[in-house]
Amino acid sequence: MTKKKPALSWDGRIWIKTQDGKFIGKGRIELMEKIKAYGSIRQAALAMQMSYRQAWQLIDDMNTKATTALVISNRGGKGGGKATVTPEGERIIKQFHAFNKKFQKLLQQPVADFIF
Amino acid sequence: MTKKKPALSWDGRIWIKTQDGKFIGKGRIELMEKIKAYGSIRQAALAMQMSYRQAWQLIDDMNTKATTALVISNRGGKGGGKATVTPEGERIIKQFHAFNKKFQKLLQQPVADFIF
Repeated sequence: MTKKKPALSWDGRIWIKTQDGKFIGKGRIELMEKIKAYGSIRQAALAMQMSYRQAWQLIDDMNTKATTALVISNRGGKGGGKATVTPEGERIIKQFHAFNKKFQKLLQQPVADFIF
Repeated sequence: MTKKKPALSWDGRIWIKTQDGKFIGKGRIELMEKIKAYGSIRQAALAMQMSYRQAWQLIDDMNTKATTALVISNRGGKGGGKATVTPEGERIIKQFHAFNKKFQKLLQQPVADFIF
């Protein structure tokens, strides 16, 4: 019996939580980055293949949980308003990436492949 | 406007993957540990509040992907057969815990709480 030998490696995900559970993970970080890039929630949602409604709810949830808004959006006007990531939002993004870098480094550790 | 200040912390999950994706995570490790403790897939499934069928499928998937069985089960007989975690299974369990310990340590790093 010979099976194809699969290479084993570590994988995982990280997120920031509050007492109420998951707060900000990879998806919300990416959403904020897209908002920063496009200046628009609608464009950011499109780029992430999610609905405007869903993107807006994610942002609303973050802003509600935080005491400082992470994304500010001026709704209304033709074509929708301008959206901005606040300095606090940018610091969360940076912090997430810095920690994720350490995490990705940890995931590089080999898995002893004695079972394949 | 005063909101309750939520304490921020890191959280996450890890698993072992192959080229085909997720292979063994926390749930499968726990299942193997229960099988080791009870000597029975049925009892282990019960302890984990999953169906026997579900537990059996998880084990079958692991054993099929590995070239060495991680759990051996003698089906049949009154009350079902005896199930055993193989030495290879035990080594995977140990390895998972060792790596998870490092991961949990990393998760202890503080989240800079500038937004709350």
